[in-house]
Amino acid sequence: MKTPSSLEDLIEALRCLPGVGPKSAQRIAYHLLQRDHPGALRLGNALHRALEVIQHCEKCNSFSEEPVCELCRSPRRDAGLLCVVETPGDLLMMEQAQCYQGLYFVLMGRLSPLDGIGPKEIHLDRLLRRAHDGVVKEVILATNFTVEGEATAHYIGELLKAKGIRVSRIARGLPVGGELEHVDSGTLAQAVVERREV
Amino acid sequence: MKTPSSLEDLIEALRCLPGVGPKSAQRIAYHLLQRDHPGALRLGNALHRALEVIQHCEKCNSFSEEPVCELCRSPRRDAGLLCVVETPGDLLMMEQAQCYQGLYFVLMGRLSPLDGIGPKEIHLDRLLRRAHDGVVKEVILATNFTVEGEATAHYIGELLKAKGIRVSRIARGLPVGGELEHVDSGTLAQAVVERREV
Repeated sequence: MKTPSSLEDLIEALRCLPGVGPKSAQRIAYHLLQRDHPGALRLGNALHRALEVIQHCEKCNSFSEEPVCELCRSPRRDAGLLCVVETPGDLLMMEQAQCYQGLYFVLMGRLSPLDGIGPKEIHLDRLLRRAHDGVVKEVILATNFTVEGEATAHYIGELLKAKGIRVSRIARGLPVGGELEHVDSGTLAQAVVERREV
Repeated sequence: MKTPSSLEDLIEALRCLPGVGPKSAQRIAYHLLQRDHPGALRLGNALHRALEVIQHCEKCNSFSEEPVCELCRSPRRDAGLLCVVETPGDLLMMEQAQCYQGLYFVLMGRLSPLDGIGPKEIHLDRLLRRAHDGVVKEVILATNFTVEGEATAHYIGELLKAKGIRVSRIARGLPVGGELEHVDSGTLAQAVVERREV
């Protein structure tokens, strides 16, 4: 009876944000309406704009505004190296570590049969075609060292080796159970240098 | 070089959400773009719609889609009682406690000189006019029992008493330093019953 329906809709809509429950959603909605109209407007616009223009790069599968992203088009990258990561965030971590000059393939996830995420959902068909294009000389698996990330690396490694492609895994310099996103650049760089063939 | 500008804009825009830093903003943006396009679209729409239609009720100052909100228009409420709360969330808590049948005035904040929030920012001129309209018989102060909430209650109490208006404060049944939003309905109801005149 008391909450305007547009406010209720906003509170409900805010729950699409990861980790936001009913109480937080209410607090966020009040905050925006009381104190940050410009921020809310900007967020609304940014959401619409991002949904409109962001697609997946045809080559690396990361987020891009063009069919092929800037990184994949760059002539300065070593096209003989292909690094497989789980998310665009992991790609960004790799770039920030400044230890790698090759190209990427972003799975946009990891194998997780219980959640219904199989080889198709992480685009392994596209990865295989890509790794088999005659230019790629080595595939570096840089999925997380979690149980699912390890299983994904193992699965992809076996697939690629069966096709005669050289595969390596970044070194377990990361703590077991750790995620790329939360590690310091030095450790990550070390792990790339110490990658081992599988 | 690597992040599309519309994605960067979205990440930056997400930082208007309270408690969201650069890392969380990035994680939220990836989540929405990877997994929840419908949620993101709905959020964008809800933000625009809320900004468009939500205003402050002329009587109670809470959020409303009409000039005067449903609660203030209700003939079933006791217009002789006026309860002063800090936020619409606090109003909602009072309603959920089902212990109060009067009307409200929402300050949309609390006195906080260090943050530049003085009597004008919490609309005390409107509250005074409202409390002095001849219909209101008692003003119940239900600001939080924090230092700022207590100071606000004291300040408003003195102002109203000087005008000969009867003022009470909800009982300190809440823990000292506690906030209305986080208390159970029973405690809150108790605090209303045990309010004391100031």
